[in-house]
Amino acid sequence: MNKTILITNDDGIDAAGIKFLISFLRPLGKLVIVAPETGMSGMGHAVTIKNPLRIKHLPNDGDVERYTTTGTPADCVKLGLNQILKQKPDLIVSGINHGGNHSINVLYSGTMAAAIEGAMQNIPSAGFSMCNPNPKIDFSFMESYVQEISARLMKNGLPAGTCINVNFPDTDKPAGVKVCKQSIGYWNEEFDSRLDVHHQPYYWLKGDFIIPEVQEDTDENALKQGFISIVPVTIDLTAHTILDITRNQFQGL
Amino acid sequence: MNKTILITNDDGIDAAGIKFLISFLRPLGKLVIVAPETGMSGMGHAVTIKNPLRIKHLPNDGDVERYTTTGTPADCVKLGLNQILKQKPDLIVSGINHGGNHSINVLYSGTMAAAIEGAMQNIPSAGFSMCNPNPKIDFSFMESYVQEISARLMKNGLPAGTCINVNFPDTDKPAGVKVCKQSIGYWNEEFDSRLDVHHQPYYWLKGDFIIPEVQEDTDENALKQGFISIVPVTIDLTAHTILDITRNQFQGL
Repeated sequence: MNKTILITNDDGIDAAGIKFLISFLRPLGKLVIVAPETGMSGMGHAVTIKNPLRIKHLPNDGDVERYTTTGTPADCVKLGLNQILKQKPDLIVSGINHGGNHSINVLYSGTMAAAIEGAMQNIPSAGFSMCNPNPKIDFSFMESYVQEISARLMKNGLPAGTCINVNFPDTDKPAGVKVCKQSIGYWNEEFDSRLDVHHQPYYWLKGDFIIPEVQEDTDENALKQGFISIVPVTIDLTAHTILDITRNQFQGL
Repeated sequence: MNKTILITNDDGIDAAGIKFLISFLRPLGKLVIVAPETGMSGMGHAVTIKNPLRIKHLPNDGDVERYTTTGTPADCVKLGLNQILKQKPDLIVSGINHGGNHSINVLYSGTMAAAIEGAMQNIPSAGFSMCNPNPKIDFSFMESYVQEISARLMKNGLPAGTCINVNFPDTDKPAGVKVCKQSIGYWNEEFDSRLDVHHQPYYWLKGDFIIPEVQEDTDENALKQGFISIVPVTIDLTAHTILDITRNQFQGL
């Protein structure tokens, strides 16, 4: 039976990354693209509640169906599943993002929010990202990796409530693939403060990403060593290891 | 030494919930409010990358400093920590949200994104939410709970990379407090499809929240039984329990 794959991203339908992704996945099944009209970087898991959404049906590209929406990546998955596709897809793939989504950046990532939407609906889902944000990079070298990872996801599925976060190191000759944990880091923000033409201040978010210590078996380390990192991601944010500490802390309330 | 508390929310500075929160926390320290100018519900962990941000300094309310920003709740915390406060606050509190943020809704919640920003910076942080979204509800009954939970957070802190998600059941006489796990549910979306005046379709996101089975020791169950739920939340989204399965699945790549 023909497989159906829902494809989205957070850089918008015109980004190079989603075009590579479409070309890689064509041999694997019927593709339906539902992507943001424009770039949606940093949207995290935002959904559109206070405004209505629009869907535009673009001309098919061969047998690839193409839609854009005015929503976020998470909205695109919701609209794809509920308004566009006739049945549950076999796979949801998001990306390929121009810029890494490893470590805690999974929480800011629209690319990964789309995959997490899939996890919530128990559909095998993956987000693919390239650590170099340069939009001109040739992603051709990723083809066999993206195909094989996607094929295995469709064949074996994933446990309920999980998806995978795949990051490519900044090299066209990856050392291989490592399944690993999310590393813990933080952004050291500085904000660039400027004055507008009316002498009023405004602020641009900028910062350096800091990994405070070497964390074995993490995506950060895998990428540094030139490996493609795959982190299995859960929709359960409970800090299970501190449940008892927390119970003690709030006892008697 | 006087404690400093950074307060934000996702319903905007004019929401009733943040006013209750300010009144509850006044006795605990010096309060600095950095909240969105307008409502930001459903923004998840969105951050503003492509546009500059503005900060407005409102008149102080007694010794409470008040600022609004044009950013998301996560932006507000970043701006508060980096542009407004002179030193790290002792506590970050977000809310009180008009609407529940239990179960997987933690992922969509701007309220919780603000607390998670605090967790990323290892500052004790909490998000407070009320399961009934009616903006007119009198939150006075929450006072002692919010004060005691916040005081304990400042006294004992939290393990690195964690914060707490506190939800109040829809009753003014809670049965008590339960520290518990996040339940797993999903949104059954339907979208309300309408035609605009030019006969073009548009879509409003709507849906029912489904909990497929009873999950012991979860926020959903605690709230149903009339308890206030406290879930310790981690910034590590790794699905640790399926690391081995995932390694097998992608072996040989």
